[in-house]
Amino acid sequence: MLELRLVQGSLLKKVLEAVKDLVTDANFDCSATGFSLQAMDSSHVALVALLLRSEGFEHYRCDRNISMGMNLNNMSKMLKCAGNDDIITIKGDDGSDTVTFMFESPNQDKIADFEMKLMDIDSEHLGIPEAEYHAIVKMPSTEFARICKDLSTIGDTVVISVTKEGVKFSTRGDIGTANIVCRQNTSVDKPEEATVIEMKEPVSLTFALRYMNSFTKATPLSTTVVISLSPELPVVVEYKVAEMGYVRFYLAPKIEDDEVDEVVEQPSKKSKAQPKDEDD
Amino acid sequence: MLELRLVQGSLLKKVLEAVKDLVTDANFDCSATGFSLQAMDSSHVALVALLLRSEGFEHYRCDRNISMGMNLNNMSKMLKCAGNDDIITIKGDDGSDTVTFMFESPNQDKIADFEMKLMDIDSEHLGIPEAEYHAIVKMPSTEFARICKDLSTIGDTVVISVTKEGVKFSTRGDIGTANIVCRQNTSVDKPEEATVIEMKEPVSLTFALRYMNSFTKATPLSTTVVISLSPELPVVVEYKVAEMGYVRFYLAPKIEDDEVDEVVEQPSKKSKAQPKDEDD
Amino acid sequence: MLELRLVQGSLLKKVLEAVKDLVTDANFDCSATGFSLQAMDSSHVALVALLLRSEGFEHYRCDRNISMGMNLNNMSKMLKCAGNDDIITIKGDDGSDTVTFMFESPNQDKIADFEMKLMDIDSEHLGIPEAEYHAIVKMPSTEFARICKDLSTIGDTVVISVTKEGVKFSTRGDIGTANIVCRQNTSVDKPEEATVIEMKEPVSLTFALRYMNSFTKATPLSTTVVISLSPELPVVVEYKVAEMGYVRFYLAPKIEDDEVDEVVEQPSKKSKAQPKDEDD
Repeated sequence: MLELRLVQGSLLKKVLEAVKDLVTDANFDCSATGFSLQAMDSSHVALVALLLRSEGFEHYRCDRNISMGMNLNNMSKMLKCAGNDDIITIKGDDGSDTVTFMFESPNQDKIADFEMKLMDIDSEHLGIPEAEYHAIVKMPSTEFARICKDLSTIGDTVVISVTKEGVKFSTRGDIGTANIVCRQNTSVDKPEEATVIEMKEPVSLTFALRYMNSFTKATPLSTTVVISLSPELPVVVEYKVAEMGYVRFYLAPKIEDDEVDEVVEQPSKKSKAQPKDEDD
Repeated sequence: MLELRLVQGSLLKKVLEAVKDLVTDANFDCSATGFSLQAMDSSHVALVALLLRSEGFEHYRCDRNISMGMNLNNMSKMLKCAGNDDIITIKGDDGSDTVTFMFESPNQDKIADFEMKLMDIDSEHLGIPEAEYHAIVKMPSTEFARICKDLSTIGDTVVISVTKEGVKFSTRGDIGTANIVCRQNTSVDKPEEATVIEMKEPVSLTFALRYMNSFTKATPLSTTVVISLSPELPVVVEYKVAEMGYVRFYLAPKIEDDEVDEVVEQPSKKSKAQPKDEDD
Repeated sequence: MLELRLVQGSLLKKVLEAVKDLVTDANFDCSATGFSLQAMDSSHVALVALLLRSEGFEHYRCDRNISMGMNLNNMSKMLKCAGNDDIITIKGDDGSDTVTFMFESPNQDKIADFEMKLMDIDSEHLGIPEAEYHAIVKMPSTEFARICKDLSTIGDTVVISVTKEGVKFSTRGDIGTANIVCRQNTSVDKPEEATVIEMKEPVSLTFALRYMNSFTKATPLSTTVVISLSPELPVVVEYKVAEMGYVRFYLAPKIEDDEVDEVVEQPSKKSKAQPKDEDD
């Protein structure tokens, strides 16, 4: 039997919104450690890892390890029916093909039970080795989200370059180029507004903005985001979930920088001669 | 001659928004009693009855009973041009084929006249007999609107069941089932937040959520909604319009409960075996 | 070399939003006087004139007159990446085919460089002669925007009539007619809420609402709008840009009033007989 009671139910709502654009169906794994999920996105490029530790729940009962296959879109539909102040309890029975989400309003006047059908999903759990990163950037999550959104109006990929002075986000597209530099800055009034860089070696890596923008759906979970970078390792974009866990996104860097440049350069040559052709 | 001056003009704007999705064209009836409307929705399933009593108007002149056929969408377009603090005056002349809406800003700096063409609409006035209801539920209108909206993400119909303890709203659909219970609760700080149940006999009736959601367009009119239920009678969903009248919606219960269950059960059987087929 | 530093960068963002719907590509002219633009809209009906005087910039360096052809949609994409509190610097080099927009956050933690490709645009600078106007109306810009928006739900053209008492905006369409009168009113608490009419002779002119609605995209620039009217002259709709300049829109009045009436009258005759035909 499974019964997980989360007083701050809005956390679970935000977690779902953070991952459901990337992952359609996934197994939630429940053990004595906590409630977790690991899944590749549908195009098998990015990986999502979620952990909500058992200590973070008001009540956590999980008699034996259980894996529950859920359609995240359907799960999100149900969780959206919970109020932001509601207590959410996840209930399951061994061998049952359903899971129940119970929502209790703070004054207990309104109690809802949503029962969702489970699915059988094949999945293999990937081991993610601990790694040493060349650079770790901690910055305000809204700032990172804003930068990814802004750059994606100009180009498709972002080059993230870290030096001691700061982190630079660059892109280029048909209409021009963009560079945004965030300086290291630890002397701020509120710690969550700091930009802190831990660097062993400078690093410069290229990523698809489409995925970065998906990752930033997790912004409401945390005021800060931690980005860990090393050459030839997937970047880790991590959002803490209160004191109880995290959502981590992994994405491999792009390596075909030269090809990208070639494609971009071509329209650049004629851009002075004529306005951008809509058919390009 | 007709001249109805309504200081709180925003009420008329809200009334139109409440009924225009359900009713396309309708006759507004004006008599010494008040300004009223009764109309079936376009699929002849739901009935809307509106009354704004003459006492609620600052000035009310109606020399003889008159019926004015209006396209509610056009009327809504015009009323949307009134500011929320504007005084609205409805003017008509006997035998004229137009009606005039006059909007005066509170400081009288801006005065607008909108003249709308009338239509000939055939309609028969249905007598709505007073009835005794098994159960009458009074609850916050925003709560009722939220429940109807939430349930319609899961299923197409809602079962409303009233007992002494509370009122239960249930639905089921391809992805699962949902039950929301609102407990009777009269010990609240603000009377408009109370859920009050007057019950002679328990009752359980099924309705199409599509119509319930249309009714909740009237939510801005009133902080509370009153739902009157009896077997074999249409449910009445009533919103008060300030102290001057009401908007009431009538909807017949669905009776083919068994058929609904059958249809829903089928996909349920295979749902464990494979993820939801989008073509279902 | 060109370097224009604007501390209140949001002004440039608002200017772009004000003109980009009307004008696709345009030359920005930079001289000792200031940063300016003059362009016809794509259908060659309306004219936009923008001036930001050099004194309004914190730093203004323009070694020689230069004209830079920009796609306003692309320029807007880049300026949207500037924060509302950012300082914006426009940089250019003689003979370069790019322009750079630099955005500095108030605390200098974030610095962005956006480099945009320039275009060759043929354009002739029209001399706009100073004119004496029969009537000049100064009114709150939000009021003017609201009126244009409201009237365009009813008809396609607006007749603007000015008398000593006030300014009247009228339209007519298939569903009826509308007249909105704003009275002269100088005794208001805040000067920006005044409606002030300077009139030599009464004037009544007809304009396409489509363009008027485009002009009102400049509303965020200024709390007031000044409308200058004379028969046989284009109307001037002017929004001040802080203390440093203006955006002016010019639009020729429509003269075929009679034709318009004819077209509108026809459906009016049958409107009593039947509801509005969607195919009309």
